[in-house]
Amino acid sequence: MPTITLTTDFGLKDHSVAAVKGALLCELDNVNILDISHEISPFNYTEAAYIIKNAYHNFPKNSIHIIGVDSELTPENKHLAIYLDGHYFICADNGILSLLASEIKPDKIVEINIHDNYERKSKILNVFISVAAHIYRGGDLDVIGKPVSKINELTHVKPTVNQQEDQIIGHIIYIDNFGNVVSNISRSFFKTMAKGRDAIITARSTKFNSVYSSYSEAINFEVPKEQREMEGKKIALFNSSDFLELAIYKSNPMSVGCASSLFGIKYLDTLTVKFL
Amino acid sequence: MPTITLTTDFGLKDHSVAAVKGALLCELDNVNILDISHEISPFNYTEAAYIIKNAYHNFPKNSIHIIGVDSELTPENKHLAIYLDGHYFICADNGILSLLASEIKPDKIVEINIHDNYERKSKILNVFISVAAHIYRGGDLDVIGKPVSKINELTHVKPTVNQQEDQIIGHIIYIDNFGNVVSNISRSFFKTMAKGRDAIITARSTKFNSVYSSYSEAINFEVPKEQREMEGKKIALFNSSDFLELAIYKSNPMSVGCASSLFGIKYLDTLTVKFL
Amino acid sequence: MPTITLTTDFGLKDHSVAAVKGALLCELDNVNILDISHEISPFNYTEAAYIIKNAYHNFPKNSIHIIGVDSELTPENKHLAIYLDGHYFICADNGILSLLASEIKPDKIVEINIHDNYERKSKILNVFISVAAHIYRGGDLDVIGKPVSKINELTHVKPTVNQQEDQIIGHIIYIDNFGNVVSNISRSFFKTMAKGRDAIITARSTKFNSVYSSYSEAINFEVPKEQREMEGKKIALFNSSDFLELAIYKSNPMSVGCASSLFGIKYLDTLTVKFL
Repeated sequence: MPTITLTTDFGLKDHSVAAVKGALLCELDNVNILDISHEISPFNYTEAAYIIKNAYHNFPKNSIHIIGVDSELTPENKHLAIYLDGHYFICADNGILSLLASEIKPDKIVEINIHDNYERKSKILNVFISVAAHIYRGGDLDVIGKPVSKINELTHVKPTVNQQEDQIIGHIIYIDNFGNVVSNISRSFFKTMAKGRDAIITARSTKFNSVYSSYSEAINFEVPKEQREMEGKKIALFNSSDFLELAIYKSNPMSVGCASSLFGIKYLDTLTVKFL
Repeated sequence: MPTITLTTDFGLKDHSVAAVKGALLCELDNVNILDISHEISPFNYTEAAYIIKNAYHNFPKNSIHIIGVDSELTPENKHLAIYLDGHYFICADNGILSLLASEIKPDKIVEINIHDNYERKSKILNVFISVAAHIYRGGDLDVIGKPVSKINELTHVKPTVNQQEDQIIGHIIYIDNFGNVVSNISRSFFKTMAKGRDAIITARSTKFNSVYSSYSEAINFEVPKEQREMEGKKIALFNSSDFLELAIYKSNPMSVGCASSLFGIKYLDTLTVKFL
Repeated sequence: MPTITLTTDFGLKDHSVAAVKGALLCELDNVNILDISHEISPFNYTEAAYIIKNAYHNFPKNSIHIIGVDSELTPENKHLAIYLDGHYFICADNGILSLLASEIKPDKIVEINIHDNYERKSKILNVFISVAAHIYRGGDLDVIGKPVSKINELTHVKPTVNQQEDQIIGHIIYIDNFGNVVSNISRSFFKTMAKGRDAIITARSTKFNSVYSSYSEAINFEVPKEQREMEGKKIALFNSSDFLELAIYKSNPMSVGCASSLFGIKYLDTLTVKFL
């Protein structure tokens, strides 16, 4: 049977996540529910977009992904169900899915229209739960919504290029658990623009002359551990999600510091790639 | 088979939650264990009471809810197993279940008395695990405890009313993930006292003249997004748990601030409802 | 079927934990995956060692424990699979398993050598996932690695003893969710050294004259609750993991303070046991 995943900004202290899981268990006996993240910053579409994009494709095909970030139905915030890359997504039309849909064309998008059909005790994500249960049982998207052709976009998740095509301007879209900062510049976009040229990457006053493929690739293991300087641990790399990331090897945000704290780079800051 | 849920103040870093789950798996092959919350503030009965009250009823009937908050057995802290509203609760007699039991009469309460019956390697919630396994296998509460008729109460979880019956004095019993502050005044208690009168709600120096039913109900979507002022986003509403809550629409405690930080309202602060 | 557990320093916000779970679900339909902890401080081997040691033995025999802390393969950081005490562990050779292996002799240790055998979309713990799937299906460790006889050790997790054998010097290796501080002195080591003598325990300027077996054992319940002083709540005890711990009864790190904050004791600080 399909897996159902949850991605929300509910946090793990409140009862909300449990309320959703309990309601799903009432509808679907023995359903397998997995958490992607409940620590999305409140109402942060970009973080949600980055996390769901990197997580979903690891799950089996036909998984159903519920995204509970800014999901209250309003005239400005319709509810969507999308089938894309063999996965189902249930989310408000607030831009979260545009990072995904900009790369992979959705096979089907419907605007959910069953809000008046039923009553349920719990008010938390109740329509999303009904839609997930419908899909889980093999139901068609057309039954719970009307087809639409386009969804809202997040503008700042896409980098821009100057006229001479020798510079990419990107932004920091995520800061990870290790304090490393992730830009919106993908490996493939970088390679397409680079056309084999070398690049200098700048964020605030920090510069990087090479881009690595892993953290350890950047470390010279011939030099004894104690003699490796901080400078030698400063790395630009394509991370496991294939986005350009600025990192410090084995950083700890709580003690010695991390890329975000030591380079002074924050969420949505600019990052520049200059091709030589 | 029944679901077992866990609600504790163990946090998610320590090994304690995993120790309990492992021990349950050893007793009950393939048991379905779900987390309600492990982020209850240490020894905070009120938070635990609020969270378990709002979470349990979403789960299927006959679920077994283990509550590991201040659960060390002492002369002042007996162990209880309760059957109420079709659900089982295993908890110390420290008042946590009184918020629940004050509204719905328990069908059965027993004081657990099997503490000397066995040895188990793990000491974390070991008796609770045994009792849960007993119930899971269909065992009767009378086998693991002796019936008792009353449990300890938390006094401050109930609001008070003045003599003229035109004022309710409540308290903040929970601050949620979005920094919104939740009082102990339920929608039904409010309605009963209001008798159709309008109300002014005051907490610290902040006043509210209306109570809404959802966050978005309070927003005027005719006004363009950019022109909506913070004042227009300040909301008193009955939240999804039907308690009176003071909120800021789309608040973020980490960045722009939230009801708790911007109104200066803290846990256990007073909130007053004045009927006109 | 065996349970698979995860212990990492990935945190719960990033997509990494979900990526690992999704990949396991793709390999092993219906596998039961349980979290031990994902809140290990980044690259903190000692914390990881303490948590895995206390958690693993609660799970059913033949469970498979994946440890994703500093797991990037480098010339200094080989990958291991170990069978010990009826459990499987998959971990980098960075010392984490030495706390375990110092007490219980591993039945089998192999250095994993299948890194070039396959491609997988996700890069997060991909070899560990393959090894776990192999073991889950009943495969032998010799198929995925070559036997080795010793693993790297963490030096500071073992206490030392003076020449006169009347003093143990230990260190704080963990601070728990309640702010209580845990030393590396086990109950059995303490008893062996004590030979029936009384002991004075000192950490910073705080002294303890007795060691209890539980939090509540230290409290005099004859004294009314309100009259019990903080001094009376200061406790040295063997915790549920049988390590010597300094605690404050019912402490709360967020409000009234805790052993770590009130005694001023930090991670890796010294603790001395003087026998009389």
